[in-house]
Amino acid sequence: MQIAIVLFDRFTALDAVGPYEMLCRLPGAEVVFVAEQAGGVTNDRGTLTLVAAKTFDEVTRPDIVVVPGGPGQSDQMENETLLGWMRAVDATTTWTTSVCTGSLLLAAAGLLRCRRATSHWLALDLLTKYGAEPTGERVVTDGKYVTAAGVSSGIDMGLTLVGRIAGERHAQTVQLLTEYDPQPPYDAGSPEKAPADIVEEWRGKSRFILKQRST
Amino acid sequence: MQIAIVLFDRFTALDAVGPYEMLCRLPGAEVVFVAEQAGGVTNDRGTLTLVAAKTFDEVTRPDIVVVPGGPGQSDQMENETLLGWMRAVDATTTWTTSVCTGSLLLAAAGLLRCRRATSHWLALDLLTKYGAEPTGERVVTDGKYVTAAGVSSGIDMGLTLVGRIAGERHAQTVQLLTEYDPQPPYDAGSPEKAPADIVEEWRGKSRFILKQRST
Repeated sequence: MQIAIVLFDRFTALDAVGPYEMLCRLPGAEVVFVAEQAGGVTNDRGTLTLVAAKTFDEVTRPDIVVVPGGPGQSDQMENETLLGWMRAVDATTTWTTSVCTGSLLLAAAGLLRCRRATSHWLALDLLTKYGAEPTGERVVTDGKYVTAAGVSSGIDMGLTLVGRIAGERHAQTVQLLTEYDPQPPYDAGSPEKAPADIVEEWRGKSRFILKQRST
Repeated sequence: MQIAIVLFDRFTALDAVGPYEMLCRLPGAEVVFVAEQAGGVTNDRGTLTLVAAKTFDEVTRPDIVVVPGGPGQSDQMENETLLGWMRAVDATTTWTTSVCTGSLLLAAAGLLRCRRATSHWLALDLLTKYGAEPTGERVVTDGKYVTAAGVSSGIDMGLTLVGRIAGERHAQTVQLLTEYDPQPPYDAGSPEKAPADIVEEWRGKSRFILKQRST
């Protein structure tokens, strides 16, 4: 079972590595990090570099595709090399998935039309522009399309998929071995739970950033 | 504030990237992945390669050290290049931390003597061999030493440290922006919660592996 995880300049590291750590433990998993060019791809902070083992040309029939998000996503929205690859491999994938603003890339490729989907809470509304139906759930499954909310939600998405593919017992084993028994020291992980003024501050910043990106 | 994250052959990816994704969002954070040799370091699955930007020699006064675990930890337990570096930088760190079996490396370096500490649940008892006092908590702080349990617990450790260093509001902001509102689809993330037969199966396998490693 080949699992292709997409990398692009200024991706968010945990978006990719969270689901990786779950999915790599599927029986028969063969994970490949894939990018436009093979070699190092650096994240949104400029301090973490993951190696893409293969180019898009070399990965033509993955069973599962994972598309992370991150600030660099906006530069990929018209990149036909990436979008065309996603469309091409989607024809034969079993699962096509994303984390965070990776869903905007799936959407821009036309893969989420009339599909329920999610994204980072600050980017959720943008899905409608591409005909997707945004929902605030953490992991959204619509047919073979599985989208996860922001950054850390890719872990929940990965474990959900492990269960769907290999069964509950295998998923429980993966959860136990990765000791995924989260105990966040704060309770501010969603716009419903975080202090309202922090949410508003970031909604404001995000409107400014999105305005910049759309001009 | 320099944050050094150690890499070694066959580390577990999420052990390193979980805390990275939290700590890199500290004000003034300068994160550096460090290893015996600069360049790509491949994880326990052989399919993920992170780039070490610097060698141990080049990172002499980090403020925070993060030591991940993983199957490769056992090969490092007598590696004086790594252990000696950890001892040397520990003299001036503000926080010396680990995730998963990374605590065994801190312990082997002599840094956890008479300290409360944790590790992956399957490795917890080994801490006593080095004079540490194992506890089953997910994140254990004893002085400036912060150890986290298995794999995914590094995220909780990272967010805990963000709060300690930059305050509750900043930690809440980091939690919101990384949407760390975990919703695991199963409830098997600790030996207390997982089905007893799965726990026993892995305790058995682990005894075998540990016996092999100690001979």
